[in-house]
Amino acid sequence: MTQPTPINFTRGVPAPESFPLEAIQAASQRAIATYGATLLQYGSSLGFPPLREWLAEWQGVSPAQVLTANGSLQIIDFLCHHLLRPGDVVFTESPTYDRTLTLLRRHGARAVGIPLEADGPELGALESALQRETPKFFYVIPDFQNPSGSTASLAKRQRLAALAERYGFWLLEDAPYRPLRYRGEELPSLFQLCPERTLHMLSFSKLIGPGVRLGMLFGPPALLTDVAKIGEDTYITPSLVAHGVAYEYCAAGELPGQIERVKALYAPRLAACLEALGRLLPDVETTRPEGGFFLSLRLPASTTTTAVRERAKAHGLNLADGQAFFPDGGGSRFLRLPYCALSPQEIEEGVRRLATTLQDLRAAESTPQESRVGL
Amino acid sequence: MTQPTPINFTRGVPAPESFPLEAIQAASQRAIATYGATLLQYGSSLGFPPLREWLAEWQGVSPAQVLTANGSLQIIDFLCHHLLRPGDVVFTESPTYDRTLTLLRRHGARAVGIPLEADGPELGALESALQRETPKFFYVIPDFQNPSGSTASLAKRQRLAALAERYGFWLLEDAPYRPLRYRGEELPSLFQLCPERTLHMLSFSKLIGPGVRLGMLFGPPALLTDVAKIGEDTYITPSLVAHGVAYEYCAAGELPGQIERVKALYAPRLAACLEALGRLLPDVETTRPEGGFFLSLRLPASTTTTAVRERAKAHGLNLADGQAFFPDGGGSRFLRLPYCALSPQEIEEGVRRLATTLQDLRAAESTPQESRVGL
Repeated sequence: MTQPTPINFTRGVPAPESFPLEAIQAASQRAIATYGATLLQYGSSLGFPPLREWLAEWQGVSPAQVLTANGSLQIIDFLCHHLLRPGDVVFTESPTYDRTLTLLRRHGARAVGIPLEADGPELGALESALQRETPKFFYVIPDFQNPSGSTASLAKRQRLAALAERYGFWLLEDAPYRPLRYRGEELPSLFQLCPERTLHMLSFSKLIGPGVRLGMLFGPPALLTDVAKIGEDTYITPSLVAHGVAYEYCAAGELPGQIERVKALYAPRLAACLEALGRLLPDVETTRPEGGFFLSLRLPASTTTTAVRERAKAHGLNLADGQAFFPDGGGSRFLRLPYCALSPQEIEEGVRRLATTLQDLRAAESTPQESRVGL
Repeated sequence: MTQPTPINFTRGVPAPESFPLEAIQAASQRAIATYGATLLQYGSSLGFPPLREWLAEWQGVSPAQVLTANGSLQIIDFLCHHLLRPGDVVFTESPTYDRTLTLLRRHGARAVGIPLEADGPELGALESALQRETPKFFYVIPDFQNPSGSTASLAKRQRLAALAERYGFWLLEDAPYRPLRYRGEELPSLFQLCPERTLHMLSFSKLIGPGVRLGMLFGPPALLTDVAKIGEDTYITPSLVAHGVAYEYCAAGELPGQIERVKALYAPRLAACLEALGRLLPDVETTRPEGGFFLSLRLPASTTTTAVRERAKAHGLNLADGQAFFPDGGGSRFLRLPYCALSPQEIEEGVRRLATTLQDLRAAESTPQESRVGL
């Protein structure tokens, strides 16, 4: 029997067909022609000034409130250097982005997970945790969260803002998926609700392409100056050649159309995923995101992600471990489905293979029980 | 009186006229046209495979012995993560590159300075230090050292290799200036003498331009895999767009000619600096490098770099502090002259202003003494 072509519901990578190659090629020409000597030289670790100005206007802030770096993950590393000492407490959603947990561990921080619901962090758990200790920051992904796909409601955003102000901790708002809303109404960001207590991060990885390595931090100028010093101590200057290309791309007015194209590409993929899950796995509990890269599901009781992953391989389906997303353990039945890099047909087939896998496991579970009864 | 245009003997930046803008522009076109979808996507934190292959062939190693990152400073950060725990000992030359000292401090390492002579580290001091403790690594810049301009002799290189083998520590050989020899004969690198105990770093910052942010680590594949995991945890993927441009530039055969052009640009600058120092400051002790970006001088007794810096401003001469280069203090009379970004005329004028500054200070020193005598 030939193995079917594997389907990967593993990493949150963009679809290669989303990359605006021609416009990036043209932008790279103009960037070197116009700013070549600046882009090839050392520069400020706050970022390429024209790019910071463009991003500031895009987000409705001043250029002094913008820092750019080689991807937003490294901004988290810089912020950890700036805000944390070993043993400090950080709150995260549970589940949360696993690479952030890795960095928190590297900095010796203690990550406390606040359980995540379909409409954002569970407020009762958050308030209890705040009774015990105040974190240095609360790392949140309010829009189309990675890995769950959940989006925080307006009421929860307002409450988060109020709590950050009352207790005096930073909200580190990671918003790479925020511009990718396929349906429904945009909600205000934490940065909009509570600018004096929010550090807001954006990225071009999901809008243009990860290889540009352009992450942005929006926050108070004094804090950004401190973060820039850490950046300078780490790499002197961000990757100006790549960031100059991104600037020229933006300055030519390409970004809004690109975001619309990316949304038009991914919206049917999310729809296909939700439709297939509803049809083929009607009893499985899933998030129902309105944008972003991920949805997640909770496997039936007595089924573990580990068992499903192992069994799924035989059906040509690759799944990711769920437990790395949980700061304090748990997640044994959590499964993230990143659907953006798959076609609607592949998604449908992938969900079908997942359904077959779950049937296999149910059959395997009942068989030995019956035979035991027969003994 | 109008102030003269300031002359900056401060930072080790390349001359903008050294940047190969047209070839980089053409390379950026080809890179996106040929590898666009790969360069815009996530990729291995070891680096862009065709670039690693090209660099391996350039340096006569296998691709598995090459890791690329966003500049070589960050490679030092990754190596500190991999090799050091707080309190660990690292040896450096004294003086050494100040940004490395900053990173070592950030990692809680204890930097022990081995005094540097005109022909490399003082071996007696090194052997005494090794009697007391074995460092995790010895950070050395054997060729055209930053900040001193000194180059380690063959005998000292051989001894360093033997000691690294005997005591079992890494030689972290930072070699960004090694390809820029303006006269004299190239000496074997530590990596050539002792590949199993040397981690060799190169950079394109001084050859093509810093804004490409391309640093390279050559070393054992297993160690590189560990370093790549730290890179992945930090930034997922290096800046592939910029590194793809650098690859296309190299693959087109541009690098050797560029290195020759850069050497032809900088050789007269070094010559102008040595000539002016010999003529205008014949009594001041200087290094006499045969390549690279820097030479250094030892100010006359009773003169401090701090006093010279302060006084030089009045003559339109900006100098850098010398003390940051010394891990254990000292350096009060050390002055680094980075000459590459100045024209021969500016260099001559800068040295003239330095000579005037030193005359001022001598005059100021003798005047109060005489008046004191007269009291």
